[in-house]
Amino acid sequence: MPSPCIDCLQYANWSEKVFQQMRAGGVDAVHVTITYHETFRETVANIATWNRYFEQFPDLIMHGREATDIRRAQETGRTAIFFGSQNPSCMEDDIGLVEVLHTLGLRFMQLTYNNQSLLATGCYEAEDTGLTRMGRAVVAEMNRVGLVIDMSHSSERSTLEAIEASTRPITITHANPANWHPALRNKSDAVLKSLAESGGMLGFSLYPHHLANGSECSLEDFCAMVARTADLMGVDRLGIGSDLCQDQHDSVVSWMRNGRWTKNTDHGEGSAAMAGFPPQPQWFRDNRDFSNIAEGLADVGMSQSEIDGILGGNWLDFFTDNFAAPAASEPEAGPVFGKRSATA
Amino acid sequence: MPSPCIDCLQYANWSEKVFQQMRAGGVDAVHVTITYHETFRETVANIATWNRYFEQFPDLIMHGREATDIRRAQETGRTAIFFGSQNPSCMEDDIGLVEVLHTLGLRFMQLTYNNQSLLATGCYEAEDTGLTRMGRAVVAEMNRVGLVIDMSHSSERSTLEAIEASTRPITITHANPANWHPALRNKSDAVLKSLAESGGMLGFSLYPHHLANGSECSLEDFCAMVARTADLMGVDRLGIGSDLCQDQHDSVVSWMRNGRWTKNTDHGEGSAAMAGFPPQPQWFRDNRDFSNIAEGLADVGMSQSEIDGILGGNWLDFFTDNFAAPAASEPEAGPVFGKRSATA
Repeated sequence: MPSPCIDCLQYANWSEKVFQQMRAGGVDAVHVTITYHETFRETVANIATWNRYFEQFPDLIMHGREATDIRRAQETGRTAIFFGSQNPSCMEDDIGLVEVLHTLGLRFMQLTYNNQSLLATGCYEAEDTGLTRMGRAVVAEMNRVGLVIDMSHSSERSTLEAIEASTRPITITHANPANWHPALRNKSDAVLKSLAESGGMLGFSLYPHHLANGSECSLEDFCAMVARTADLMGVDRLGIGSDLCQDQHDSVVSWMRNGRWTKNTDHGEGSAAMAGFPPQPQWFRDNRDFSNIAEGLADVGMSQSEIDGILGGNWLDFFTDNFAAPAASEPEAGPVFGKRSATA
Repeated sequence: MPSPCIDCLQYANWSEKVFQQMRAGGVDAVHVTITYHETFRETVANIATWNRYFEQFPDLIMHGREATDIRRAQETGRTAIFFGSQNPSCMEDDIGLVEVLHTLGLRFMQLTYNNQSLLATGCYEAEDTGLTRMGRAVVAEMNRVGLVIDMSHSSERSTLEAIEASTRPITITHANPANWHPALRNKSDAVLKSLAESGGMLGFSLYPHHLANGSECSLEDFCAMVARTADLMGVDRLGIGSDLCQDQHDSVVSWMRNGRWTKNTDHGEGSAAMAGFPPQPQWFRDNRDFSNIAEGLADVGMSQSEIDGILGGNWLDFFTDNFAAPAASEPEAGPVFGKRSATA
């Protein structure tokens, strides 16, 4: 079985076309965002929508619940879809919903989107007060059930405290190093090093606002950045989280940024002059272009095994260790659980 | 592995004491009611409460999701708890919640409690209009995902139409024959015969309002009724659904009867003079008394294998066939699916 191709963050306007492009691109698994500011009940409605996709397109996609589902997807020529949330709104103020959402298939949850949440501080707040009391309780509960912590949109101190408080490795599924492109959403070397040392994972973003030179970013520049980050974090701590927002209407990015929290218009990483989704770089338009990244990484000197790891093998290992309760609490034998140290 | 002891309906005021009595009584699996008139969100809160029980009492109980969990419970000395709803309030007006609730562990859902629902007619209504348009859609969806239809509280025509419309066998988890005790909640011979011919199951109730002579019903009388019902339906179509409501405050039976649908007080099977829970018969006080029923069935001439079937073996077979999607829709080999005919 070849090493799988895994994209650890997309939020497309889902359609048969997008699912067919996943197959055309050989994408074996995708972590899809199913909810931003939605309540629990609204999130469940989104899950019901996904259940209809699974019923409607059984030859293209399947619901991914465990890492082994990726192998099953490869064997049956489908893409395994794993659910994630970009904000903890879906769990409301109820710690009992952590396990319920995990049972419904949620595998990643950001402790914040851009704002302060009940759990931690988002990267657009002026003050970062770190994990809240509830944040620490929820981190422990997420560790218990196997719901992976994602700090992609969180601020520096909150992220460092989440790495420290979590007994299991965490993720930044879609962001890039701030040393390459200093955006509020990109991450400091201190965060990236701490993430790597605790066995966590970084997914490189292909969203233009996270790229040096935005939509004009070159493949060479992107891949050279990946290679430098491998030197910093260890090559097996790296994957892709493209943040592909394909075919979305611009009203969707407004929902992502404004939810129901303001009556004004927040432009987030955009601006009044550029309020919508920015155009993708020419070398990564959609799911069919992962091979361009593989070629670009080869051109900056990476080996095939390193490329296989970044394109999906590293996420597969991470999923295997982190999507279920820790092995110790299961009566049956399970995968080895624990933080791993960086290897490079 | 001995034939399991299964009770297919309880709604106790759950506690460590009750769980310990399940163990003391050798009860391997219980279908517990988790919701009556609650909304979806309220039902999820009840599930979260159960998740805490599973976390708190891992040596006594475990969450049952598949029939094989009963064998696992037997092997580890625990009771497998299967979830059910006595009303479709939990799915609101949203057919997408059928699959969501199944994913969260729901294995039985009554199409009605005592009143007209969105799906069918309850046994206390003056007019029975049978399955509604939504009722037929929901029956098909319940068949698809493996959520078992329960018509314990439904009226005659609705029950016959549910048996006819369903492509999989259905249940009356907790009721008795009306020919023995003519209560609104007990069932006609026509319903019982149709249920048996379609491969469905009847669970005998030990709730005093369903018993001839109520709390004073004798074990002998009850067991003779079981034997006569075996002649009518076939002995393998029978099980127990005790309707045990142990340690509940009388306010709970008021919630069951009145929910939020009336500002008056409906006494259901009770009366103003006897508004609360009636006392249990002396020979079935709680989970420790299933052996009395086994002895009583032997005394009316039933064989050990017939008694094993009624005390749990028949429910085990039914659970095995009906708690998952039909075999044909699964890529892997699964249990044989289909209605079975009565054997006696």
